[in-house]
Amino acid sequence: MSDTFWRTSLSSVAENKILIRGYRVQDLMERSSFGDIVYLTFKGELPKGREGQILEMIFISSTDHSLLAPSIDATRFAASGGTPLQAAVAAGVIALGEHHGGAIEQCSKLLQESVASGATAADIVKAFKERKQRIPGMGHPIHTHDPRTLKLVAKARDWNLAGPHLALGEAIASHLKQPLNIDGAISGIVSDMGMPWQYGKAFFIIPRVVGLAAHAVEEVTRERPFRAVNMKDVTYDGPAERDLP
Amino acid sequence: MSDTFWRTSLSSVAENKILIRGYRVQDLMERSSFGDIVYLTFKGELPKGREGQILEMIFISSTDHSLLAPSIDATRFAASGGTPLQAAVAAGVIALGEHHGGAIEQCSKLLQESVASGATAADIVKAFKERKQRIPGMGHPIHTHDPRTLKLVAKARDWNLAGPHLALGEAIASHLKQPLNIDGAISGIVSDMGMPWQYGKAFFIIPRVVGLAAHAVEEVTRERPFRAVNMKDVTYDGPAERDLP
Amino acid sequence: MSDTFWRTSLSSVAENKILIRGYRVQDLMERSSFGDIVYLTFKGELPKGREGQILEMIFISSTDHSLLAPSIDATRFAASGGTPLQAAVAAGVIALGEHHGGAIEQCSKLLQESVASGATAADIVKAFKERKQRIPGMGHPIHTHDPRTLKLVAKARDWNLAGPHLALGEAIASHLKQPLNIDGAISGIVSDMGMPWQYGKAFFIIPRVVGLAAHAVEEVTRERPFRAVNMKDVTYDGPAERDLP
Amino acid sequence: MSDTFWRTSLSSVAENKILIRGYRVQDLMERSSFGDIVYLTFKGELPKGREGQILEMIFISSTDHSLLAPSIDATRFAASGGTPLQAAVAAGVIALGEHHGGAIEQCSKLLQESVASGATAADIVKAFKERKQRIPGMGHPIHTHDPRTLKLVAKARDWNLAGPHLALGEAIASHLKQPLNIDGAISGIVSDMGMPWQYGKAFFIIPRVVGLAAHAVEEVTRERPFRAVNMKDVTYDGPAERDLP
Repeated sequence: MSDTFWRTSLSSVAENKILIRGYRVQDLMERSSFGDIVYLTFKGELPKGREGQILEMIFISSTDHSLLAPSIDATRFAASGGTPLQAAVAAGVIALGEHHGGAIEQCSKLLQESVASGATAADIVKAFKERKQRIPGMGHPIHTHDPRTLKLVAKARDWNLAGPHLALGEAIASHLKQPLNIDGAISGIVSDMGMPWQYGKAFFIIPRVVGLAAHAVEEVTRERPFRAVNMKDVTYDGPAERDLP
Repeated sequence: MSDTFWRTSLSSVAENKILIRGYRVQDLMERSSFGDIVYLTFKGELPKGREGQILEMIFISSTDHSLLAPSIDATRFAASGGTPLQAAVAAGVIALGEHHGGAIEQCSKLLQESVASGATAADIVKAFKERKQRIPGMGHPIHTHDPRTLKLVAKARDWNLAGPHLALGEAIASHLKQPLNIDGAISGIVSDMGMPWQYGKAFFIIPRVVGLAAHAVEEVTRERPFRAVNMKDVTYDGPAERDLP
Repeated sequence: MSDTFWRTSLSSVAENKILIRGYRVQDLMERSSFGDIVYLTFKGELPKGREGQILEMIFISSTDHSLLAPSIDATRFAASGGTPLQAAVAAGVIALGEHHGGAIEQCSKLLQESVASGATAADIVKAFKERKQRIPGMGHPIHTHDPRTLKLVAKARDWNLAGPHLALGEAIASHLKQPLNIDGAISGIVSDMGMPWQYGKAFFIIPRVVGLAAHAVEEVTRERPFRAVNMKDVTYDGPAERDLP
Repeated sequence: MSDTFWRTSLSSVAENKILIRGYRVQDLMERSSFGDIVYLTFKGELPKGREGQILEMIFISSTDHSLLAPSIDATRFAASGGTPLQAAVAAGVIALGEHHGGAIEQCSKLLQESVASGATAADIVKAFKERKQRIPGMGHPIHTHDPRTLKLVAKARDWNLAGPHLALGEAIASHLKQPLNIDGAISGIVSDMGMPWQYGKAFFIIPRVVGLAAHAVEEVTRERPFRAVNMKDVTYDGPAERDLP
């Protein structure tokens, strides 16, 4: 065991040499896709099948969702305050929490632990009902037949990337009579690839950074600075004006 | 000179001993105000007059501004995404950029450099006009007679804390026939205290964190999760739906 | 009930008028301390006793801890990358998570729920032992007789601000034969003030912003840009250099 | 012109329909690479040549750099404080400032303005020397023959993606007798693609998020919580312990 403060198995750097999991970065640039590199970075080895390709499909599915996402809205306001691009993007990344992309972490954890323990869809639905909790990865407020989910699940099957985790996700959805949503589909697929659930949110963070950057630039180049919520959209329901005691 | 990677003159820590600029933290807790400690931390010595008290007034002036501030709005959306308190607050802090509190840095720099070089209000107004730039710290879109500014400037005078920097700020405002705004008043006062302009934004960040925390808690405890901009408030003006080429 | 998207009871803004919980900001600037305003903002009413003063003591206790804190270290590196002050501060605020100030939220929740339900120190210690979890707010790796804690607890008693939550915290510590740490002392005191536990981390975020700002300025003004961990402090333990398959 | 508060040309969302610049997201998932989508999002149209492929090469070049980067270090410390993945990643994104990836924005702006105005490499070198400023995108402290740069420039030429901006970058480097660094090579290539310089940092932010996520997960899964700089690496050079005045 090392006695340095820092340890990493991810990459190494020396003069004119950068290795990602042992591979020379210039070789990866020559021969691999971005999806492959994400797989390599997180798993430690290059994919043997079309995992890199389906990761790119996952990323393409989640780059942007117009203003209809708290992340994009947070970045727009941060950009409007006059902050550099990376900081405005970071404000939106912060918003990718438990209710916004976070379902990928929660659902991946659920699927991985359940497949490991042999829990069935019926067990899971029963347990969540008893705790009065929603199962992550199921249902969507707008997209009842989400074209992203349909495409991802179809390709996972075509490319032999669909395994027990995706199947369990689909079985849960079927029990609930709700569609598997985009978070649930991604969770099933990345879990079948062997991605530890701790990486779950990363599959949403990586692509959403594209949309966040584009919205930040659009805000700064098209709009006047310092935009904020309009007074007419705010109800104040605290105490009326008063004198100090 | 030290050969460690890190150097600091701000504080030191040993077993059961925390020193801020050399003073024992328990002594400061006993005898000083929060405003005093900010002064001590930034300047290295405790104030000799009422500088700590006017810093508290500055902080009280800037804790919150309802939803009418990009920072508060960014934090609200980040909180709505389901992120812990400190991360939601950070999203709002990021928004405190060049157009939102940033004027304190800009105006402090201008006042400090101008007082040092002997530049007059007339010189400064002329130079900014030629460059077609707005002078930071002057005018406000809503508050034409900002009660915060009036109070601060009056107290600075009462307490013998008004010096050449505040005077120069007021002279510029007078030339422009615009009021000195809250950023300009703060800039004059902290510059007269000898605060380096690099700290400028801190005088707004510190108090605004109070409002950001309160809005984050209010969002999470009063509203449903995952709120985003309404579709009816968005105009899409890009290409219409189209097939891939 | 309102039909606007936004609702707030915290503050209101109109032309030349800013009200915090109904009070005119200029009146608060004139008559209140920063600690009072934090109390007012979070609780909705001004304190009747010395709550504002003990909040200032809490803040003074937690402004800085040299480099021996992940928050300060994150801010130092963010500043070194060349980012404006507010963004560097935000990087450190993000680090104030479950293991770093987060104990105030956890411990406040525990104390508030336990006082409400009548759970005793013995019950709590037993429950945590069974779940093999550490009780938040107890023990410290460096400070065995933390001068901050001693001072805070003594003042809370002197000023009649010590109630059942602080007493329960002390009883738990006594059971564990560990000292109540600074997070635990703050938790007891703010809970006795009636602060909802959701605000817990805020009592650490607000003061730590002072230290974060000072470290960011110190980094930028004393050190060369783009500092990073030294290669000699890093052990790489991943795969050796290899060719692509 | 629209009278809604928000306007965007980037994407639109309706029930079961997400359009990116007018294209159905499921079609893009089927037929495009991640690099194509970044091009489409930022430029408004799909690439006609191998622009998407070289963008993926750019991304692969910049995912990680071990601990030898302020961004990675900031994320490590934020993760260690106990913050969720997206927030730890955001702390690192914030660090991607003027000295750390920021050169892509600065160099792209320089190349785009210079090509537009007809300024030559000799003009530019002279102007920067007179202002005693470093030209962004030139030289590297570790990588004198950066394999990433060599690969990128070679491919840009092979694929007919090298134009006047890359040529100008190379001419400046030649004048300075320094290598074009990775930031400079990226700047030349994305400028030749017609990417506005405001997007510059995005080409570094997008891939670095991969490394930041991996380091955050590695920190949390391999190391104990709350790690901070060691006291032995810190020199305190402020005032010695002292009594209050």
